[in-house]
Amino acid sequence: MSNVNPVSLIATKRDGDALSDDDLTALVDGYTEGAVPDYQMSAFLMAAYLNGLSAREAAALTEAMLASGTRIDLSDVPGTKVGKHSTGGVGDKVSPILVPLVASCGVPVAKLSGRGLGHTGGTIDKLESIPDFRTDLSVDQYRRQVADVRGVIAGQTGEVAPADKKIYALRDVTATVDSIPLIAASIMSKKLAEGNDALVLDVKCGRGAFMKTDAEARTLAETLVAIGAEHDMPVAAVMTNMDVPLGRAVGNWPEIREAIACLRGEHADTTLMKIVRGLAGEMIALGGEAETPEEGRARAREAIENGAALDRFRRLVEAQGGDPSVVEDPEIRPNSAPVAEVTAPPRAHGYVADLDALSVGQATVELGAGRQTKAAPVDPVAGLTRLKKPGDPVEPGAVLARLHASGSPDLDAVRAAVRDAYAFADAPPSTAPALKARYDTQGWTSLSEPHADPV
Amino acid sequence: MSNVNPVSLIATKRDGDALSDDDLTALVDGYTEGAVPDYQMSAFLMAAYLNGLSAREAAALTEAMLASGTRIDLSDVPGTKVGKHSTGGVGDKVSPILVPLVASCGVPVAKLSGRGLGHTGGTIDKLESIPDFRTDLSVDQYRRQVADVRGVIAGQTGEVAPADKKIYALRDVTATVDSIPLIAASIMSKKLAEGNDALVLDVKCGRGAFMKTDAEARTLAETLVAIGAEHDMPVAAVMTNMDVPLGRAVGNWPEIREAIACLRGEHADTTLMKIVRGLAGEMIALGGEAETPEEGRARAREAIENGAALDRFRRLVEAQGGDPSVVEDPEIRPNSAPVAEVTAPPRAHGYVADLDALSVGQATVELGAGRQTKAAPVDPVAGLTRLKKPGDPVEPGAVLARLHASGSPDLDAVRAAVRDAYAFADAPPSTAPALKARYDTQGWTSLSEPHADPV
Repeated sequence: MSNVNPVSLIATKRDGDALSDDDLTALVDGYTEGAVPDYQMSAFLMAAYLNGLSAREAAALTEAMLASGTRIDLSDVPGTKVGKHSTGGVGDKVSPILVPLVASCGVPVAKLSGRGLGHTGGTIDKLESIPDFRTDLSVDQYRRQVADVRGVIAGQTGEVAPADKKIYALRDVTATVDSIPLIAASIMSKKLAEGNDALVLDVKCGRGAFMKTDAEARTLAETLVAIGAEHDMPVAAVMTNMDVPLGRAVGNWPEIREAIACLRGEHADTTLMKIVRGLAGEMIALGGEAETPEEGRARAREAIENGAALDRFRRLVEAQGGDPSVVEDPEIRPNSAPVAEVTAPPRAHGYVADLDALSVGQATVELGAGRQTKAAPVDPVAGLTRLKKPGDPVEPGAVLARLHASGSPDLDAVRAAVRDAYAFADAPPSTAPALKARYDTQGWTSLSEPHADPV
Repeated sequence: MSNVNPVSLIATKRDGDALSDDDLTALVDGYTEGAVPDYQMSAFLMAAYLNGLSAREAAALTEAMLASGTRIDLSDVPGTKVGKHSTGGVGDKVSPILVPLVASCGVPVAKLSGRGLGHTGGTIDKLESIPDFRTDLSVDQYRRQVADVRGVIAGQTGEVAPADKKIYALRDVTATVDSIPLIAASIMSKKLAEGNDALVLDVKCGRGAFMKTDAEARTLAETLVAIGAEHDMPVAAVMTNMDVPLGRAVGNWPEIREAIACLRGEHADTTLMKIVRGLAGEMIALGGEAETPEEGRARAREAIENGAALDRFRRLVEAQGGDPSVVEDPEIRPNSAPVAEVTAPPRAHGYVADLDALSVGQATVELGAGRQTKAAPVDPVAGLTRLKKPGDPVEPGAVLARLHASGSPDLDAVRAAVRDAYAFADAPPSTAPALKARYDTQGWTSLSEPHADPV
């Protein structure tokens, strides 16, 4: 910060003018080193929240946060490595299915994931519900596993984008979280550190997602792709629906168990698997193992059907120290039996008309599956299974969901919350398309037409 | 802050919504007590800067900052006490003339003043250039002097509006100074603590002032009057020109010396004395010693002519421990002789066309009269005297100004800066009116018409 006055940088953004790459680097470096205090960074963040950041500024902020830490180099691993990121939703167990699935089709996938906070779970918490599964890999272990297994999902270490970590913590306590360019820079500063050559993004949209509207989700997708382009990283963003929970299980072990069932091919026609295949098609095409996303989707379907994806998952679990026997027989995992049920109320005649993802996410946290603060432990088995979903027939007293917990949550309160998340109707509802649209530097393509997915 | 979440208050202002009186009190109290950290207050200040504060919010912020410290009670002092505040300009020695002048007309004036920072001087620094003059009065001394002398000018103690002091320091380093509602709340939180019953504000406008445009100055005047109204304090705001320095002297002792000359009646027809009489007329009318501001102006003229104002100044100086002999004979003050002159360049034929107040203020700081940081000492004798002003005839080699300093400033640099502050022309310029307009809860009145001042 030797030649830069933080007050003048704050004033520039305050007045709606653009900062240079050097300005943003100086600000982020100064903050990381402690030369710029929290109170100046928070004033800058509020000015950026209210006045926005240009695509160029968002890219420079990303670069500065990326450069604050380690950028993993996988250039000696053969193949076009393709990363994946989801903006987060309720019941989102796509990664544990997708990573081994794409790897089994010949495309290496290196993934750093986070823990859950608030109403959405984290992939790291989910995988750690597999007995003995380790996510605290060294960079060497991570690189070796990409080479050997073609798939790895490790926890983010403090070495990746420490500036983002410090800035995110400050945003959390200064009402500056919900800014699309700040969200995009935070995501991309971590994804660019993973060592992949291309990236597919699942931009979730709906009441259970951080982006509530199509307009917000589209802007985020465009910002993410633009930052990728500034870093010469091909990025495809797929906008997917998150009004209702994904799949029929929510919680750490409940979701891994559902993921294993998906890898076995048991849920091929579900919304969840449509999204998995949609993302897999993009990744396989970007990785050069298919000509088009459509062809990639067909290859993904085949890899589920012939057992290659499940086999790859078993190898990934074994490589990260996990117990492969639970992959074969999930029933043997201790404490995984339900402790209670939620039944449909007397008014529940006909069909499930709606199920609010946000309420389901919050009820899952109440059961012990999530954390309200960063240091809190999570209950690996807690959650909901066999959720009835919109379109399912229902009658009074039918089981809407089974509750799992190894602690002592207030089951009556959770039951009431889950019941309140449901709406019922005489006729089946019209369901929203799972895949809404896709975006890359060529522009937007709708995915909600019948031809978009062969199923 | 027990029931208030600072993040939600920041978010409310971020989203452009209004905070309640209780919200703002909780925020200010929390900040003063240390429960709200700097980084949350600075995020709030930036949101307030960009989204504004309503009149009601500005009044509540003022009240919370006022309530953080002592509010002096002068209710046992007879008479309607009237305060005065200036938003600051170059060569602004109005207060040392105005306070004894108004007091000599029967209206008590209690004033707390600040030190100078940046290109404008502070009344406290100016008065302290009188040998032995004391400004660190106790509340008891202050109250007794209002009763005995009817006039007092003391330094602000840490007991007055400590929350404002802490918030101002934070604004200074987070690019949130130039916000009209924040400026207005800061001013009024201190002026409401002085113990007066009414208030007259000199809102300076022009390139040597903080408000550069008429529009900004008008908004500030309206905000200040509105805050006064919310606190049942009658306030009259007078907008005055600050494009050129006020008077012909700039610096601490140089300005006191000019003030003494004004009190002697030596500069009755100057812009400076028009402004003094304009403000005095308002104060005398608000204090009930004249029916109208016009009548108050006439009384002020009389008090200068009959020596009552000068006599009152001598009593004020004596009451605050100052050496009254310099009031009689300013020449005896040590080190007050000029050390150099600035002469007109060869192109200076005809008249002074313009003189830039900001450049003159900065040159005065270079001579040692001001401070760049809060802890710096000031040179009491440093400054400029006998400044040529717009409209004065000039020829090459004529003396434009005399320089004073007891330290070792770079006189060549100061000479060049002062010379550059001048413009010359063949014909005398049209001069801007000294008094522009006045505002109170009844609305705006123009003061720039010929009838506004009998001179």
